[in-house]
Amino acid sequence: MFNYITSGESHGRFLSAIVEGVPSGIEMDLPFINHELARRQGGYGRGGRMKIEKDEVQITAGVLKGRTTGAPIGLLLENKDFKIEQMPEISRPRPGHADLVGHLKYGEGIRAVLERASARETTMRVAAGATAKLLLREFNIAAASHVLEIGGISADVRGISFDEIVKNAPQSEVYCVSASASEKMKAKIDEARKNGDTLGGLLEVRVKGCPPGLGSYVHYGRKLDALIAAAMLSIQAVKGVTFGIGADFAKLPGSKTHDEIGYSKDRGYYRLTNHLGGIEGGMTTGEEIVTQVIMKPISTLRTPLKSVDIKTKKVEEAAYERSDICTVPALSVICENVIMIEISKVFLEKFGGDSLREIQRNYQSYLKQLQES
Amino acid sequence: MFNYITSGESHGRFLSAIVEGVPSGIEMDLPFINHELARRQGGYGRGGRMKIEKDEVQITAGVLKGRTTGAPIGLLLENKDFKIEQMPEISRPRPGHADLVGHLKYGEGIRAVLERASARETTMRVAAGATAKLLLREFNIAAASHVLEIGGISADVRGISFDEIVKNAPQSEVYCVSASASEKMKAKIDEARKNGDTLGGLLEVRVKGCPPGLGSYVHYGRKLDALIAAAMLSIQAVKGVTFGIGADFAKLPGSKTHDEIGYSKDRGYYRLTNHLGGIEGGMTTGEEIVTQVIMKPISTLRTPLKSVDIKTKKVEEAAYERSDICTVPALSVICENVIMIEISKVFLEKFGGDSLREIQRNYQSYLKQLQES
Amino acid sequence: MFNYITSGESHGRFLSAIVEGVPSGIEMDLPFINHELARRQGGYGRGGRMKIEKDEVQITAGVLKGRTTGAPIGLLLENKDFKIEQMPEISRPRPGHADLVGHLKYGEGIRAVLERASARETTMRVAAGATAKLLLREFNIAAASHVLEIGGISADVRGISFDEIVKNAPQSEVYCVSASASEKMKAKIDEARKNGDTLGGLLEVRVKGCPPGLGSYVHYGRKLDALIAAAMLSIQAVKGVTFGIGADFAKLPGSKTHDEIGYSKDRGYYRLTNHLGGIEGGMTTGEEIVTQVIMKPISTLRTPLKSVDIKTKKVEEAAYERSDICTVPALSVICENVIMIEISKVFLEKFGGDSLREIQRNYQSYLKQLQES
Amino acid sequence: MFNYITSGESHGRFLSAIVEGVPSGIEMDLPFINHELARRQGGYGRGGRMKIEKDEVQITAGVLKGRTTGAPIGLLLENKDFKIEQMPEISRPRPGHADLVGHLKYGEGIRAVLERASARETTMRVAAGATAKLLLREFNIAAASHVLEIGGISADVRGISFDEIVKNAPQSEVYCVSASASEKMKAKIDEARKNGDTLGGLLEVRVKGCPPGLGSYVHYGRKLDALIAAAMLSIQAVKGVTFGIGADFAKLPGSKTHDEIGYSKDRGYYRLTNHLGGIEGGMTTGEEIVTQVIMKPISTLRTPLKSVDIKTKKVEEAAYERSDICTVPALSVICENVIMIEISKVFLEKFGGDSLREIQRNYQSYLKQLQES
Repeated sequence: MFNYITSGESHGRFLSAIVEGVPSGIEMDLPFINHELARRQGGYGRGGRMKIEKDEVQITAGVLKGRTTGAPIGLLLENKDFKIEQMPEISRPRPGHADLVGHLKYGEGIRAVLERASARETTMRVAAGATAKLLLREFNIAAASHVLEIGGISADVRGISFDEIVKNAPQSEVYCVSASASEKMKAKIDEARKNGDTLGGLLEVRVKGCPPGLGSYVHYGRKLDALIAAAMLSIQAVKGVTFGIGADFAKLPGSKTHDEIGYSKDRGYYRLTNHLGGIEGGMTTGEEIVTQVIMKPISTLRTPLKSVDIKTKKVEEAAYERSDICTVPALSVICENVIMIEISKVFLEKFGGDSLREIQRNYQSYLKQLQES
Repeated sequence: MFNYITSGESHGRFLSAIVEGVPSGIEMDLPFINHELARRQGGYGRGGRMKIEKDEVQITAGVLKGRTTGAPIGLLLENKDFKIEQMPEISRPRPGHADLVGHLKYGEGIRAVLERASARETTMRVAAGATAKLLLREFNIAAASHVLEIGGISADVRGISFDEIVKNAPQSEVYCVSASASEKMKAKIDEARKNGDTLGGLLEVRVKGCPPGLGSYVHYGRKLDALIAAAMLSIQAVKGVTFGIGADFAKLPGSKTHDEIGYSKDRGYYRLTNHLGGIEGGMTTGEEIVTQVIMKPISTLRTPLKSVDIKTKKVEEAAYERSDICTVPALSVICENVIMIEISKVFLEKFGGDSLREIQRNYQSYLKQLQES
Repeated sequence: MFNYITSGESHGRFLSAIVEGVPSGIEMDLPFINHELARRQGGYGRGGRMKIEKDEVQITAGVLKGRTTGAPIGLLLENKDFKIEQMPEISRPRPGHADLVGHLKYGEGIRAVLERASARETTMRVAAGATAKLLLREFNIAAASHVLEIGGISADVRGISFDEIVKNAPQSEVYCVSASASEKMKAKIDEARKNGDTLGGLLEVRVKGCPPGLGSYVHYGRKLDALIAAAMLSIQAVKGVTFGIGADFAKLPGSKTHDEIGYSKDRGYYRLTNHLGGIEGGMTTGEEIVTQVIMKPISTLRTPLKSVDIKTKKVEEAAYERSDICTVPALSVICENVIMIEISKVFLEKFGGDSLREIQRNYQSYLKQLQES
Repeated sequence: MFNYITSGESHGRFLSAIVEGVPSGIEMDLPFINHELARRQGGYGRGGRMKIEKDEVQITAGVLKGRTTGAPIGLLLENKDFKIEQMPEISRPRPGHADLVGHLKYGEGIRAVLERASARETTMRVAAGATAKLLLREFNIAAASHVLEIGGISADVRGISFDEIVKNAPQSEVYCVSASASEKMKAKIDEARKNGDTLGGLLEVRVKGCPPGLGSYVHYGRKLDALIAAAMLSIQAVKGVTFGIGADFAKLPGSKTHDEIGYSKDRGYYRLTNHLGGIEGGMTTGEEIVTQVIMKPISTLRTPLKSVDIKTKKVEEAAYERSDICTVPALSVICENVIMIEISKVFLEKFGGDSLREIQRNYQSYLKQLQES
């Protein structure tokens, strides 16, 4: 059972994660993991911290001679910007952050809240997700992502192919495959920066290579789209998730939204379209998984919102703490890695197996079953 | 820990559910549960089956003298339309349903798939959810829902109040608070019926009365919005979920999307707006929870889509099985009940307690703590 | 993942269970399940109720044409002795039962407690366990049990074979393989009955046919012996569980307690002895699983113990409710079925698979791997 | 939701754990945790490694200004004896260890198995358990343990009080309260050492201060004794667990084994005896929890057992790796800490609460309820 927990605070000494349930025999490609962390740190619209930190994770457990052993994998990342015990207490909670409610709930002050609620925690989610990517790449399952909209500037890229995303998104400072939209998005970010404001956006994640039949309809707790939705919404600042043609399902009739079925000797069953985004009845259809994620603007504004001082109960301006302007590009990397954790769960549930070798056997025999079905 | 499993097939003799973790001392209001089941059966756009069935659930366990005992609650519903062993096998899978992939995965034929994948299962989810409603109404936490869009016809009802929803949605055959939009939606449904087509839509669920601090930011697995998203996506035909102002988060800047904080002696902390939909950092803020759910059109079309016969591998028209035209209204009831299960989980996690009396004490003492914070 | 919940009260109308995670394609042999239920009802030392009831379960879901479909399996059992709403309230809690603490905790009276805490619930655990047996018999994994001791009368049967248990235990009214010990145990039970007293005992469960490698050492939560221990202790009246030579591990040195390893072409690796009871490092070794379970005497005595009336707080005799004298034989059947649920969990975790056919393929390919290791 | 995962290998650089679900406001007493680790390292019968290592854990997350914040707690321990990549591969599996089966299962060699399967992992379980102790000591719930038997030498200490254990067990090098038995146990260990052999034993853990009503009978998954049994059996080398008078339940009649109920104004309900070991119906009774744990002898013998070389398939002597002679005393410390994790789970489930302050309020109000019951 692929499963993990993270720990760590934004300015604590260490962030860490333990990933349980990774099979043995996976090549633990540390440069790959660190490359994912670097992608997460990038994107136009970042503030100053990402210049201080160059996130590199250590593998502290679960790997011997470069390969996983089946034991829990320990991941450790040292914060260069480590000064949590010196950080000032805060009394004016920032709207949109966990500050106010977190303090009401846990009673240890706002600093204690924001240090954990910070999106800095997503470094460990990316590291854990990169582990899932390493597992799934052995089965030619890959994820890609691209930014569709930032602050109302959207790219008209419906129907773009997976390979185009892989090739073009990294060319853009906002991880958008359209060069012209990228420029407009950057200009919008510059404008927001000037105004002391922040921006949200919309991005898309795709996963290709899944065989049909991951996830299940038999029990509500095993639907893959439900697992993915939970994973996406559990990322800081995410406010929505849709699959396939998303909002258009509310507009178009059934005759235009379902994916007709074809068959050929070579490909087996396939779909003439992929409106549903690769998931039907909570299961992969074999087509690409297509999901969109909505991000709210970052909650820390240089031009602060109204708040209330928790000591005096007077209306004041919210505290300001160094922050980014827009992290939609970074979020695309986070989502891309986190989704692979959910795929790994249902993949391992279906194929069982303790070692890569065993899973490969089970997987191949299922592919053969599909051909004969 | 509020937890449940359902079992049962569309034309099986019994549907059932077991709900574990319900505290003792809750008045088990059976007419209320059956009323929720009746609401689920309603809505313009239904086909014939809802005339055969009048869903009424029996409580088979966990209740004595009309009150919960703390033991698992057994819920049992007898299908009048019980003929599963006589139902014909199907060889032409319906696109959009679990038919094809379910058969490839489980290998027991398409009939075995569709009987379980059918949205008939949602009766038990409503029954379980109604149990959660009974628990939460003791704390003045209530849910309501209304339909925003069907087949492209949308109601302009942004900003409508909870009470207006409660009052007006039931007046409409499509559970939409706007009488004029309701008429247009019904016409659209009639048109789809004439065309042998089906329609999806968009609906909104609201929950009012939650204290601040349900859910948590400390661990990705405890974020309330993630739990709700999973619950919504696990319902048949749901393809997306958004919170608060939803897609507008990708358009508006941070200065227009976060909810500034106010304070008064009477109300304590409150928000000047509720763009975030009542959840910040994975926790309730104390404002209304506001979430929207996208439903795809029903997958069974009288004018069938192209499919492939699984025996001959030839392209054929998909099978047809008696079905509805539009169940967006029904879905609104399902979502409304299912969301309450997730609220119950985090509510009981926060307040603990084995009996209603104990939870009430713990709850009151937290409200007092909030007042003093 | 094989998972289940039960519901139901001792004198409620229905007991039920839902079993989730059973693969498709298993022949659902209802007479077999009912046979297990009948075995559970038997054994010398029973009181009157077992004469009223002849437990037969209905399968309400998850099965079509006699085979599992992969959907949750619904199990329903109607109590003939159904009169829960007429049963008298009780004010003098019976020591050893959940009566007193259950009432303090849930506050709904002692009747509400004892109806659920009753070992009548184990009917559904046997039914669920019999489902696991049906799955595992497809892989030649079988469980057997026999009684070792009742009320201090013990059978000297160390080293008896699995086949002897299967053959001889059913010959005995106390499910003990030794005919002479059986007679003494029955006499002891008669004596206890005469004295208004009750008896506990000790029994052994064996599982044969498990391949090496079920369970794991990598994470404390995945150790098979831990799973089995929890399952056994979760059965009413169980007070201890040991594996292999049990208490002798505290006495003998390491040189006499570990199982040396042999190898032959035919058998692969094997053990010269089986002191450890088939589990090493939380994993099956391939030898028989051997576990012993201690049962306390039944808590309801005709010659009552001292208690306190919860209304008057005066010392009184505990209430008496029709009961058995000794149910160690019945417990052996319960344990035998319940252990198979835990084996199923780790079996399916290792071999994955949605259908019997797929699991068989994965299983066979693992057996081949073992041969080549 | 007290929950944790550990990672780390015996000779890896770091061992770590993440503990999720600890409420805020607990004083994180690091010297206390390290004291528990030191106790675990002690005991007569240890080999050389415990002289190399002085285990001290760092808290890497979840604590600010010395108090828990509600966030996951990161625990990190650096192995001084860090040389995993230099450790030699092993080809002759040691009977009793996970070596053989672990290799068959994961296929990465025996070194990869033994490094994780090693009881060195229990350092992190003690560290996590010590965190639970810190939580529970705020409610005057405390655990103690003592050794009852080593290699057949047993101490006759039935009926000893909790306070005597706390006072006298630490005086003994084998953590046994009887000075004379301690000397005999040490002599037995010396003898085993001379013979190249190892010893197992029996120990008892007690927990005092639990209110009645932790755990539950309503669902098999919530019984406290089942949770404890799983926790104990999940510790390396544990082969059995019993509660209260243990094996005597199979011998004595019901009239001598159940705990009669008394009542006084001051104490409320109490028991005249505590044969059941403080748990009835899966719930604490308010009496001391009493549980015994059987440990097998350490599997690594200097005078090796027979094994088979996995490369040549020839019978050979098992590999030898520096090891201890007897670690029953260490195990008593491990069990004592691990049991507190399970108590914490049911404690937090019952009392809910995010902060120590809130839990204290809920707890006090329950105590008051008990007084009034």
